[in-house]
Amino acid sequence: MRTKFQSDLDEIAGLLVDMADAVRTAIRRATGALLHSDAEQAASVIADDDQIDGHYRQIEEKVYDVIALQAPVASDLRLVLTALHIAGDLERMGDLADHVAKTGLRRHPAPAVPAELTGVIRDMAKVADEMAGKISRVLSTPNVARATELERDDDAMDDLHRRLLSTVLDPSWAHGVEAAVDMALLGRFYERYADHAVNAAHHMVYLITGEPA
Amino acid sequence: MRTKFQSDLDEIAGLLVDMADAVRTAIRRATGALLHSDAEQAASVIADDDQIDGHYRQIEEKVYDVIALQAPVASDLRLVLTALHIAGDLERMGDLADHVAKTGLRRHPAPAVPAELTGVIRDMAKVADEMAGKISRVLSTPNVARATELERDDDAMDDLHRRLLSTVLDPSWAHGVEAAVDMALLGRFYERYADHAVNAAHHMVYLITGEPA
Repeated sequence: MRTKFQSDLDEIAGLLVDMADAVRTAIRRATGALLHSDAEQAASVIADDDQIDGHYRQIEEKVYDVIALQAPVASDLRLVLTALHIAGDLERMGDLADHVAKTGLRRHPAPAVPAELTGVIRDMAKVADEMAGKISRVLSTPNVARATELERDDDAMDDLHRRLLSTVLDPSWAHGVEAAVDMALLGRFYERYADHAVNAAHHMVYLITGEPA
Repeated sequence: MRTKFQSDLDEIAGLLVDMADAVRTAIRRATGALLHSDAEQAASVIADDDQIDGHYRQIEEKVYDVIALQAPVASDLRLVLTALHIAGDLERMGDLADHVAKTGLRRHPAPAVPAELTGVIRDMAKVADEMAGKISRVLSTPNVARATELERDDDAMDDLHRRLLSTVLDPSWAHGVEAAVDMALLGRFYERYADHAVNAAHHMVYLITGEPA
């Protein structure tokens, strides 16, 4: 029974890795579509979000089956329910990548991001990409140190977010109110993506250590 | 066993009602604090968010206990796990009320909301308040018709959100970029609050009917 449970957990972990890889690809491609005004790529990111939602449902079904068929208790039950929390965070990260792609589409064919902000957006996307990559790696090979690195990544994201807002709110901002609003919302999408990655990392530390992060 | 399970479900439903009432109070008081530049009330909404998070953990513990001690299967297992989804949405609604309160504090003692937007913000808060009230009532007395009303409420919220954005983006907007960014984010907080209320309603329809909404 224990061995079957362990192999079920491994299968769930494998599904979570696939989902983390998918939301990583999504934020990378959404940012590319945004910065290059690539409507075709934006549309494909938006379409792929359905697959990420499908991953979520697949993990949910598997977790339900494991609970119903194996009736895990105590720490085993907590472990398997933790997978649902991680899947929920990843699903939301997929939604936020979708929002980034839509931000680009709304202004197409004009560029959505003013030139002086492309650097900070690129950096935010890079941090987001690294965070999703670390989640994928920690899910494959449990590693508390790597999971806790995401806290520092999140600090870096918050610094970039403040930089973006201070550019938008600077008296020299020359792109008007609409671009300012777009950029503030865009900044929030990346920042929320990072917040969900940190939540997922906290749940993974719990999975590895049995103690809340 | 079945009777014990039913009484556990009733207890979980009672905790969810308390939580729905708490997030309803939170958005109402956060909006009051915002519109009246009331820093003391804003601080109390922010402090109360810890209690809402505590509600979430209490429901989570209870759900874990029910699963571990009673090993529900099939539809009973789904029912009890659905409570976790509803609690997750309510927890997020509490966070969004907290964000509304913080928006007011950031500009204090200056008013955060320009005069021409107080009406639409008041209307958005009213819809949010009604939605949380309906969730509370449906959790007390299951009613599919009332649960599905939240879809129409969400459409009303989306209309108000568009109205807010069109005011902010109108060439006559005279309050500058910072207030525009603040109002766009504020609009998003109410709109997300409503989205989570709709999610919770979908889960409640499932609880009542056994069929996804």
